[in-house]
Amino acid sequence: MSITHATELRLTARPDTDLREDHFELARTEIAPPADGEFLVRNDWMLLSVVMRELMEAEPHPDLPMSAYELGRPPWAPAVGTVVASRSSLFSAGDLVQHVYGFRDHVLAAEGDESFTKLDPTLLPRPEYHLNQGATAWRGMVTLAEAGPGDTVFVSGATTGVGAVAGQIARCRGAKRVIGSTGSKEKIGYLVDDLGFDAAFDYHDGPVAARLAELAPDGIDVFFDNVAGEQFEAAMALAAPNARFVLCGSLSGRNPALDLEPAVLRDVTIRGFTTPYDNDPAWIEHYSRWLREGRFVFPHTVVEGGLAAVPGALVGQMNGRHRGTTLVRL
Amino acid sequence: MSITHATELRLTARPDTDLREDHFELARTEIAPPADGEFLVRNDWMLLSVVMRELMEAEPHPDLPMSAYELGRPPWAPAVGTVVASRSSLFSAGDLVQHVYGFRDHVLAAEGDESFTKLDPTLLPRPEYHLNQGATAWRGMVTLAEAGPGDTVFVSGATTGVGAVAGQIARCRGAKRVIGSTGSKEKIGYLVDDLGFDAAFDYHDGPVAARLAELAPDGIDVFFDNVAGEQFEAAMALAAPNARFVLCGSLSGRNPALDLEPAVLRDVTIRGFTTPYDNDPAWIEHYSRWLREGRFVFPHTVVEGGLAAVPGALVGQMNGRHRGTTLVRL
Repeated sequence: MSITHATELRLTARPDTDLREDHFELARTEIAPPADGEFLVRNDWMLLSVVMRELMEAEPHPDLPMSAYELGRPPWAPAVGTVVASRSSLFSAGDLVQHVYGFRDHVLAAEGDESFTKLDPTLLPRPEYHLNQGATAWRGMVTLAEAGPGDTVFVSGATTGVGAVAGQIARCRGAKRVIGSTGSKEKIGYLVDDLGFDAAFDYHDGPVAARLAELAPDGIDVFFDNVAGEQFEAAMALAAPNARFVLCGSLSGRNPALDLEPAVLRDVTIRGFTTPYDNDPAWIEHYSRWLREGRFVFPHTVVEGGLAAVPGALVGQMNGRHRGTTLVRL
Repeated sequence: MSITHATELRLTARPDTDLREDHFELARTEIAPPADGEFLVRNDWMLLSVVMRELMEAEPHPDLPMSAYELGRPPWAPAVGTVVASRSSLFSAGDLVQHVYGFRDHVLAAEGDESFTKLDPTLLPRPEYHLNQGATAWRGMVTLAEAGPGDTVFVSGATTGVGAVAGQIARCRGAKRVIGSTGSKEKIGYLVDDLGFDAAFDYHDGPVAARLAELAPDGIDVFFDNVAGEQFEAAMALAAPNARFVLCGSLSGRNPALDLEPAVLRDVTIRGFTTPYDNDPAWIEHYSRWLREGRFVFPHTVVEGGLAAVPGALVGQMNGRHRGTTLVRL
């Protein structure tokens, strides 16, 4: 097999405030044929997430487990691809694999690289369904909050990749009522009609506390928070006894007047958690089954146009223009 | 046995802002001899707690499980007494009992009244040691926060009845370092010299965040909060990965700028809990053993002078003049 011509997308400048498309540039590279123990992967899909914006900073938040993206190189990103040539005994041509070498259309891998996982192509309806953020949603909604029958569940930021899965997990586990908040009127229909939420509201439509009190007359048992600020405050005021609040992802900054007194008087548990990219077998098992049973929608937005479309898609994601997980078809 | 002359302390007016001694009056009453199934208790000790101030309101906080104190009657309060006459088969003269009929020197009880518990007089060094607030401290420090070896533990409001027990529980369970905050310089010595805290500080001495950062160089694994506000904020900024925060009792109101982002990025669990007066057998077992082994001090302030001294003691407690649990010798 001869030299492969490949394309990668490099971060060339750190955004000072807003991210722009010209913070990236496409570059053409060459990849040598696999040597012994190596295999070549053609990337088919990559995932974009909001944490990537933070990793473009020279000094990302010190508590993040990932280091800053390097300038002049393609950043890491979750991706799914197909092995197209192999001199490894572990991976064969045709294998479907998941890894973290997005931002490029091909990658030459060594079989000792533990970031490559072989996928079972029969488990999910399509290869890109593996690039979901469900393990994070599962951790918050099931492992930590233990949402189940009888619970009134509120998900803020419910049209994000994590939020849209979290709400559906609660529904599939028999929650009494699942409520979502989002940032536009048209996304309300998406949550209720497409994803099966019982109710949804646009947080721009007046005080969140009043809107939420109408929609959750029995109080809130489980709150899956992607947003913080006013929505956290409103949920806390409505917390039911023994409520479980889970705080996911980065927050919208300081709360102007956060009152934790209800947490004391109503025995509320609040758990912050970070978002690992590892998959939880329990999540995959339920995801696969719920999809087969037609009870679950993989909430995602497909961006067409390959690597050239990635900078614009990152900007679109930061501006809330996508529904669910953002996936780029490479 | 003839009529017993008894004294009770009645709440006669609801304080509008500050509690004053003239919100109470002493009254003389008569108690008939026990009928079949009844027994007469002479109260020896009663406990005063800060929640009593809230119960003097016409409409206490709706989340509190107790109802408002009635005007013209003696309020409820935990008490320990001795049975002095009995026509019950369950309680005999000489028995040590605990109940909730404080604010009076004698009480005639029916054997079906489940608020009376017979105490084992050999378990603790003195009868009044049963009136501790340790079950609350145990719930927060052990059941919820699971404090143990290797943990840096911070207790705010550490000279309160609950706080002073909570810090000692952490020490007895092998915490690496126990730090307490209090509101005066002389109480620092009480925490370190008398109760065995590793370090303590007066929260009036400059910014809490800076003081705490000096005293907890490895971050905070367990925070037992009786105070909220600036101290919660400072502890959260120093939270170690997988830290456990427990919020006990009523809080000092809204936090001016509470940042829960560290809770997300460091997987912090925050649990609010209310304070039951029921005793936990696990707590009593450890309390009894640690006292016998000389490793534990029952932190309390004894108020002499009987019922007449109670109004002044309530005022003193609200003003932070006591150390540990406030007990009145009747």
